[in-house]
Amino acid sequence: MGTKDVRVGIVGASGYTGGELLRLLATHPRAEITVATSREYAGQPISNVHFNLKGFLGNLKFSQLSVDQLIGKCDVVFTSTPSGVAKGLAPKLIEHGLKVIDLSPDFRLKDPKLYEHWYDFSHDAPDLLSKATYGLPELHRDAIRNAQLVACPGCNSTAALLSLIPAVEHRLIDLDHIVVDVKVGSSEAGMKPSIGTHHPERANVMRPYEAAGHRHVAEVEQELTALSGKSVRVALVPHAVGAVRGALATSHVWLSDTSTDELAVWRAYAKRYGQEPFVRIVRGGRYPDPKYLIGSNFADVGMAVEQRIGRAALFAAIDNLMKGAAGQAVQCMNLVLGFSEYEGLNAPPLRPV
Amino acid sequence: MGTKDVRVGIVGASGYTGGELLRLLATHPRAEITVATSREYAGQPISNVHFNLKGFLGNLKFSQLSVDQLIGKCDVVFTSTPSGVAKGLAPKLIEHGLKVIDLSPDFRLKDPKLYEHWYDFSHDAPDLLSKATYGLPELHRDAIRNAQLVACPGCNSTAALLSLIPAVEHRLIDLDHIVVDVKVGSSEAGMKPSIGTHHPERANVMRPYEAAGHRHVAEVEQELTALSGKSVRVALVPHAVGAVRGALATSHVWLSDTSTDELAVWRAYAKRYGQEPFVRIVRGGRYPDPKYLIGSNFADVGMAVEQRIGRAALFAAIDNLMKGAAGQAVQCMNLVLGFSEYEGLNAPPLRPV
Amino acid sequence: MGTKDVRVGIVGASGYTGGELLRLLATHPRAEITVATSREYAGQPISNVHFNLKGFLGNLKFSQLSVDQLIGKCDVVFTSTPSGVAKGLAPKLIEHGLKVIDLSPDFRLKDPKLYEHWYDFSHDAPDLLSKATYGLPELHRDAIRNAQLVACPGCNSTAALLSLIPAVEHRLIDLDHIVVDVKVGSSEAGMKPSIGTHHPERANVMRPYEAAGHRHVAEVEQELTALSGKSVRVALVPHAVGAVRGALATSHVWLSDTSTDELAVWRAYAKRYGQEPFVRIVRGGRYPDPKYLIGSNFADVGMAVEQRIGRAALFAAIDNLMKGAAGQAVQCMNLVLGFSEYEGLNAPPLRPV
Amino acid sequence: MGTKDVRVGIVGASGYTGGELLRLLATHPRAEITVATSREYAGQPISNVHFNLKGFLGNLKFSQLSVDQLIGKCDVVFTSTPSGVAKGLAPKLIEHGLKVIDLSPDFRLKDPKLYEHWYDFSHDAPDLLSKATYGLPELHRDAIRNAQLVACPGCNSTAALLSLIPAVEHRLIDLDHIVVDVKVGSSEAGMKPSIGTHHPERANVMRPYEAAGHRHVAEVEQELTALSGKSVRVALVPHAVGAVRGALATSHVWLSDTSTDELAVWRAYAKRYGQEPFVRIVRGGRYPDPKYLIGSNFADVGMAVEQRIGRAALFAAIDNLMKGAAGQAVQCMNLVLGFSEYEGLNAPPLRPV
Repeated sequence: MGTKDVRVGIVGASGYTGGELLRLLATHPRAEITVATSREYAGQPISNVHFNLKGFLGNLKFSQLSVDQLIGKCDVVFTSTPSGVAKGLAPKLIEHGLKVIDLSPDFRLKDPKLYEHWYDFSHDAPDLLSKATYGLPELHRDAIRNAQLVACPGCNSTAALLSLIPAVEHRLIDLDHIVVDVKVGSSEAGMKPSIGTHHPERANVMRPYEAAGHRHVAEVEQELTALSGKSVRVALVPHAVGAVRGALATSHVWLSDTSTDELAVWRAYAKRYGQEPFVRIVRGGRYPDPKYLIGSNFADVGMAVEQRIGRAALFAAIDNLMKGAAGQAVQCMNLVLGFSEYEGLNAPPLRPV
Repeated sequence: MGTKDVRVGIVGASGYTGGELLRLLATHPRAEITVATSREYAGQPISNVHFNLKGFLGNLKFSQLSVDQLIGKCDVVFTSTPSGVAKGLAPKLIEHGLKVIDLSPDFRLKDPKLYEHWYDFSHDAPDLLSKATYGLPELHRDAIRNAQLVACPGCNSTAALLSLIPAVEHRLIDLDHIVVDVKVGSSEAGMKPSIGTHHPERANVMRPYEAAGHRHVAEVEQELTALSGKSVRVALVPHAVGAVRGALATSHVWLSDTSTDELAVWRAYAKRYGQEPFVRIVRGGRYPDPKYLIGSNFADVGMAVEQRIGRAALFAAIDNLMKGAAGQAVQCMNLVLGFSEYEGLNAPPLRPV
Repeated sequence: MGTKDVRVGIVGASGYTGGELLRLLATHPRAEITVATSREYAGQPISNVHFNLKGFLGNLKFSQLSVDQLIGKCDVVFTSTPSGVAKGLAPKLIEHGLKVIDLSPDFRLKDPKLYEHWYDFSHDAPDLLSKATYGLPELHRDAIRNAQLVACPGCNSTAALLSLIPAVEHRLIDLDHIVVDVKVGSSEAGMKPSIGTHHPERANVMRPYEAAGHRHVAEVEQELTALSGKSVRVALVPHAVGAVRGALATSHVWLSDTSTDELAVWRAYAKRYGQEPFVRIVRGGRYPDPKYLIGSNFADVGMAVEQRIGRAALFAAIDNLMKGAAGQAVQCMNLVLGFSEYEGLNAPPLRPV
Repeated sequence: MGTKDVRVGIVGASGYTGGELLRLLATHPRAEITVATSREYAGQPISNVHFNLKGFLGNLKFSQLSVDQLIGKCDVVFTSTPSGVAKGLAPKLIEHGLKVIDLSPDFRLKDPKLYEHWYDFSHDAPDLLSKATYGLPELHRDAIRNAQLVACPGCNSTAALLSLIPAVEHRLIDLDHIVVDVKVGSSEAGMKPSIGTHHPERANVMRPYEAAGHRHVAEVEQELTALSGKSVRVALVPHAVGAVRGALATSHVWLSDTSTDELAVWRAYAKRYGQEPFVRIVRGGRYPDPKYLIGSNFADVGMAVEQRIGRAALFAAIDNLMKGAAGQAVQCMNLVLGFSEYEGLNAPPLRPV
């Protein structure tokens, strides 16, 4: 280890989320990347895959996954792997005292049965589920600070939850009729080509997918239920739209009290999120748009109330690869290690892009 | 007049909808364009504005709006004008026996008071409101055939209604909790530049707008109320997304009977739309996407049912300038004149685009 | 055969070019599609692949390639196949009197040795090369009318040639320093997904490819050499840019006579292309842009002369899947069969799109 | 002034380049923004215009341009103004000892007559032209270090020059036949809406503009002439393509010695740019693409040689708002002030975006 405070490993470093972790940690003042694994690209320089990182990260190369190597060379490990991989890997790392920040769904749900329903596998480390902390700092900051295993939320879930937390917490809305309509860019599908992500097919789409029940709804329901103390069910439908990055959750809700106006809703959000380092509230005739968040870890939230019919639209916009994935994971790492949450995450979004 | 059956005038021919009317009528086998007005481009060849139409439409030039000229040279007039213009123009044309196909909002609403609420004007031809026929053939085919004044729906309304008609008609859904989340391409905003449509600002957006109540909801509520016999209120929120053409309505609804499955919903839609010339039902793991409708007058509808929580997503996709504007207007003209509905509208959508 | 004049087969009907042939021929007044082959999708309805064509083409299904079936059921066969396939197939079809319109490179080059250089195969039907007619109607209209085998140009070649023909024919330019810089949309790469066409990687690119020598340059050089009677060599570099459809050739040339002005160049183009049904000349401060040609068989050509340094830019824009592929092939079929060239190709381009 | 080393003013801070200067300087460790002028938005918070910067820059507001204020509150001033403004402003600032980094064309050209030809104005501070340093560090690093007035290159010029410098310097190419074909994203046109930048018109374009002579060619010719000692004339044609950010220069050249191969060209570039902090050389079958530079100050250069005909394509890709504008201006500021060139510019590019 060099002059940095912490040695970091990234498992699954050749995908988009892995690439963003590399990008963020390359300039993080207190973290040094010591291991970056990739089955497909082991032995190759990072910039063979991540063209953007040419000139960064010195001589770091992709390596094959080796638990021993991770244990020997890392203090913290990010697992950016397909569902089902981290649950086999995390127990060994934790046993050896490493901190694990998992970006996969493997530790997000507390109830092991939900994995059978939503992910088609039975969980082989169910005891770890209760020890894992759901990595949304806006809900679980203190727990994350003390966590050895952080389960970072999915990007749809992050946007959905941030749009709803103050409204649910303050019981501003009818909990039985919550609709979350999500729009996402193409990077959410990851780096593996398919006909659905082939540019001629993916450009200009307005395409619903997994419309009869998307996996991410399970974690949204879990967190909102915990927050409200009442069993919350959510209708969540994601849509692929014409962008590379970005996710917008539009939560359509009915107000508990039809006299609630936009100012009252805003006050609840302003109070709840006022001290949050990465949540900004958008007002003044504008609504959140991920376009103005690209490259940053911020989430923009906003609201519109139509008193005529007693309903509201609650919005949260994020960069799906940042606050929806790698940025939030680094934010969690900062908390776990006692760093400032801003460390390595201080870049403003780009505009225009 | 030449060898064609009907002489057509287009008022407001230099905008996008006007351009699409020109394009469609240029190759319509039974219609001849005799007048195309434009305040800004009067005297100029059509292709000075509509570059695509170079070589079409012979020597036709834009002219200044003249009611006398319209009366003298046209049998049918399309009014593709900003809100508030057609209501002054239509009465004179109708008086002289012309058919009027209005693409503006001026005659869509039956209740004149709604214009004060939603459009900030008081209607000066309220008697015509009752005589106007709402130009959605899937709802009012027979009335359109006999109409002298057709009020074509907005593009958001067309998509919203087509997604909901069978479900509302058959009372499959809870009429008190209907959410319509609409996604639209940039052409919906028309041809006038603004900062919101400036390419660097408009590309890649996921941007809600008029989220506290969009005007088009008034006509959607009017038609669904008439259809169901019950006062229906709708939460409708449009979102600008990254595409030039296309509109998708995702109607989020709660099922009246939680035992209703996707097959049952499909059957209701298949029965209702089975004979419709321009409605196609999408199934088999796919959902409607405007991408596969570009350049055509088709609407694709589809559905997803999540029985777990008794909710459904009902989709309708259109090309906003075609089935959402000019194509539907030509479909209405065909009905008004007793032509086949397909006349001039038989082109399949493009793919990929 | 039904009431149509000609029975048509399409070999390789599941790709983008095949899909465009299906789309165009679905509404062609004189042609009936009797066979559409696809290895991968044999037995499936056309609209399983080409979602846009749902409701068109009756019960036509993809079938496995069978020469006997083609011979028995077709008068004309389009071969829309990877390089190397048509050269094995065409001889048998021609032997049985069928007309063959090949959209692959297999018969474009007259010199068999060029196939070894540019395509890595040695041609097994070299005698057919001399009998094949290069399918650019603007160069070989009469020969196409009498051809049994038409070799349709590549899309880059079509654009490159249309930009240069009048200038080379009239010796307006220095034939030793011709640069053709081509920009193309993503559909040019076909329907097979790859990392290079994966939407997150392909969106927003300005990406040169095959920059040290693109195969299409061989046919461009062949045709310009024939046209000028002098051995012409061309520097041709294609660039992938952010669009699905479209190809623009910018030919950078040096004027033979530095007193040549833009009007003189325009006159040469106007004279050469004045009677061409699908070539339009763009002037008046505008230059050709494929954007205004989408969905049509037109080519727009234009020019800019900088007398200060005696150079010109000569432009040709096309829809790469239309005038660059399927549209031009149908134009050739119309010529081969003695139909009007416009038959089935009369649709104006879309705008905006 | 706070704890930062230098006080910075930005004249014209509400446009895209101004916004990027604000973004970069907001996190620059040694610079503090004290003045940001905007005629249109004076008095408003920065984030009213630059939504991305909400939460940054404390209470800074746009102010009206005041020379006295700039002199009193700034050590360095960036002028990001339309052509013709900075030439009136710079003399006063310089007189008071301020450093001026001009991003407009006002001081780029040494010969005042060229302003009459290319910019339609006669220069009123011609003496300053000789004192200004052309702000391309790769050409004039030492001079910039000592400059009081830096004239930053245009984005097209930056890309054109970086693609050509080693080839011209080493006389690898025929200086009489240099063609530079440039592709640019929509942000190059600035923040003012127009029909040409209206999203429905600007999306998906491949659109040549100013094809008969673009202003930026004057500075390219000036610098290449100085570099080679021979009067160099360049054919430069920009094309708008489908992206928000990015500029790619493809320089098409003919090799002086036809035995020069790609390795030899690469060596010249590697040697020339090996120590450059912001130039990266792309090889190995890839060519530069601005897509992989977004948000960073890097330029990627590359080359392809077709020995068959003795020509080469020399590429340089940049983010037009960064290395093509604000990033390069900050790089120049760092040089002027004796800071490390990387200061505030160390962010890797984003991927994917």
